[in-house]
Amino acid sequence: MTSAVEQNLIEGNKAYSSTFKDGHLALPPSQKYAVVTCMDARIDPAAAFSIPLGAAHIIRNAGGSAREAFRSLVISQQLLGTTEVLVIKHTGCGMLTFDNAAARGVVAKNKGEAAAKEVEELDFLPFPQLEQAVKDDVEWLKGKNVEEGIRVSGWVYEVETGRVRKVE
Amino acid sequence: MTSAVEQNLIEGNKAYSSTFKDGHLALPPSQKYAVVTCMDARIDPAAAFSIPLGAAHIIRNAGGSAREAFRSLVISQQLLGTTEVLVIKHTGCGMLTFDNAAARGVVAKNKGEAAAKEVEELDFLPFPQLEQAVKDDVEWLKGKNVEEGIRVSGWVYEVETGRVRKVE
Repeated sequence: MTSAVEQNLIEGNKAYSSTFKDGHLALPPSQKYAVVTCMDARIDPAAAFSIPLGAAHIIRNAGGSAREAFRSLVISQQLLGTTEVLVIKHTGCGMLTFDNAAARGVVAKNKGEAAAKEVEELDFLPFPQLEQAVKDDVEWLKGKNVEEGIRVSGWVYEVETGRVRKVE
Repeated sequence: MTSAVEQNLIEGNKAYSSTFKDGHLALPPSQKYAVVTCMDARIDPAAAFSIPLGAAHIIRNAGGSAREAFRSLVISQQLLGTTEVLVIKHTGCGMLTFDNAAARGVVAKNKGEAAAKEVEELDFLPFPQLEQAVKDDVEWLKGKNVEEGIRVSGWVYEVETGRVRKVE
C-alpha cells in the first residue's frame, strides 16, 4: 500500500519532472563549496542560502554536525574538488534541548530495552550553546590535516526571521 | 575578507528573509516523516520530492547513507515524533565511482601522509550497485529494534530526468 507521504512524493515529483530541464548538470559542484546544516524541517537551504541547483554539496544531519559530516566533506573536497565549507547551525535547534542521558531515557521509555541497548553507545551530539557549537565545529575542521587549504566559516540561521549571520 | 561564496549567501539571504513569513513553524515536522538522501549538488529535495517548509526532516550525506543517518533518524523519530522514512539514492552518484582504497589513495596523493593517516580508518561507504544499495539500507533500518513501527521505503532519483521511482 502507498502511504500518504509516498503519494505526495509521487504526485509532486511528477509535476517537478514534467518541467525539469537540468539533466545536463555535472557531478562536481559548479561553485566548489559545501554547506553543512541541520536536518530541521524549517530550513530550505537552496532558498534561504541562495544555492542554485548544481552549485554546492548540501550535507544535513541532526544539529548540522561537522564531525559527523567529516566523511562527506573529505569526499566533497578530495574527490569532487570543493574548496570551501560553510557550517550553518540554527536557533531553536532540538540539539539544545536534551543531553545523551535524556535521549537514551526517551528511547528506553518509548521502545524498550532492546532498542535502548542499540543506542547506548550512540553519541547524539547534543550541544548546550549555539554559537559555541558553531565555533567548536569550525575549529575542529581547521585542525584536520586533510582540511588544509579549505576555507571554513561558521554561521547561525534564525528560523524565526529567516536571517543568517556569521559567527566565525 | 568575505569570499564570493559568503557574499552570495549574505545577499541571497537578505532577499529571502525580506519576504520570510514562516517564523511560526513548529520544531517537530508537521507531516511526521524524514528523508535520507545524497549531498549531491544536483538534488533539491524540497522541490523534487515536494516537501513544504516545516513538513519533514531532510538528512543528507555522501551517498544518502541510512547507516550514517542513524543518529539523526533516532532523534527524528524518538524525540521529534516522525514515523516514516524515505531513503532516496540517485543515478550518477559519486559513491558508485570509487572504493575505499581508491579514496584513500586520492587523499594521500592530494594532501600527503598526515592527511592520509587521518582517513585510514574512515569507511567512505561507497557502493557498487545503486538499487542494491537502496535495498541494503532499507533492510538495515528494518532490522533495528529502535525502528520498530517506523515505515521505511527506498527510492531512486534520476538526476538526468528529475524523476523518482520506488525500489522497495
